[in-house]
Amino acid sequence: MRQATLAELAEHGYQGLTVENVAARSGVHKTTVYRRWTGVEGLIADALELAAEEPWPVPDTGTIEGDLRELARMVRRGMDPTATAFVAAGMQDEAAARALNGFYTARHAQSAVIVRRAVERGELPAGTDAEEVVRATVAPVYYRLFIAHERVEEKDADRAAATALAAARAGVL
Amino acid sequence: MRQATLAELAEHGYQGLTVENVAARSGVHKTTVYRRWTGVEGLIADALELAAEEPWPVPDTGTIEGDLRELARMVRRGMDPTATAFVAAGMQDEAAARALNGFYTARHAQSAVIVRRAVERGELPAGTDAEEVVRATVAPVYYRLFIAHERVEEKDADRAAATALAAARAGVL
Repeated sequence: MRQATLAELAEHGYQGLTVENVAARSGVHKTTVYRRWTGVEGLIADALELAAEEPWPVPDTGTIEGDLRELARMVRRGMDPTATAFVAAGMQDEAAARALNGFYTARHAQSAVIVRRAVERGELPAGTDAEEVVRATVAPVYYRLFIAHERVEEKDADRAAATALAAARAGVL
Repeated sequence: MRQATLAELAEHGYQGLTVENVAARSGVHKTTVYRRWTGVEGLIADALELAAEEPWPVPDTGTIEGDLRELARMVRRGMDPTATAFVAAGMQDEAAARALNGFYTARHAQSAVIVRRAVERGELPAGTDAEEVVRATVAPVYYRLFIAHERVEEKDADRAAATALAAARAGVL
């Protein structure tokens, strides 16, 4: 069911997602979908929960500079129609917002190892808030895409990573 | 018509915005609204264009530290149901996205004076990209609210401002 939900999201976006289409694509009757997932919100939440549990290639380049840059670039590259549909769903539906919160909480925790390794290597001050460094690294990419609706070039991702790194080095995060 | 659009957005959000309700609230016939604004997207774009032209109290505390902190706090405080409805509209509709891009382009340009004054006072390096400092200051607040669906406390706004300032001082922006 999750694959069908993701495929429908990629094709039609959140606004075009219907239980009927997901059921048809996965070859089950729509009453089965309603019984188990209750509706579109349940399908979205389920797909996001599974996405949060997926292994994710956390960058490990050997330096904090390289790792944060790769993290910001991955976020930029990963913004396909499905990811965009998830973000839009979170703005329109309380259940999707809760599911997205769980997804990003998991991603922040997974990415925090980047910062812990840098502290161990002596690149960043002990006591640096790892998840705040992650937020600062990715936030400008999301801001351009979903709030200001600006283009995001690779140099914009790199600048976001450099911003987070400068703040972490200065002991601000 | 703009006041009626803003009032409807505040009450019902973007998904509840209809030409019928805006027309009824402003006391005109709905065909008049359709003729001049073509639909919900036109009403949103019109309201955003007017919002972009509005004078906006750009902080002027005397220090770059104080100005950026106040800017981040203003963004946090300003997130009322109408502002949230605008952000949601941008994720669902191409015309609203273009209008939001125009709105944020204007806000970035208006806020850039904060950075130019700091450069004149010798607080930041000459050549600092003023609009990038503004983006870095506000992005983490928007990221928490609309992407990760996390709470935003005043200390989170302050940390975003401190992050942007550290990066600007380091010559990264």
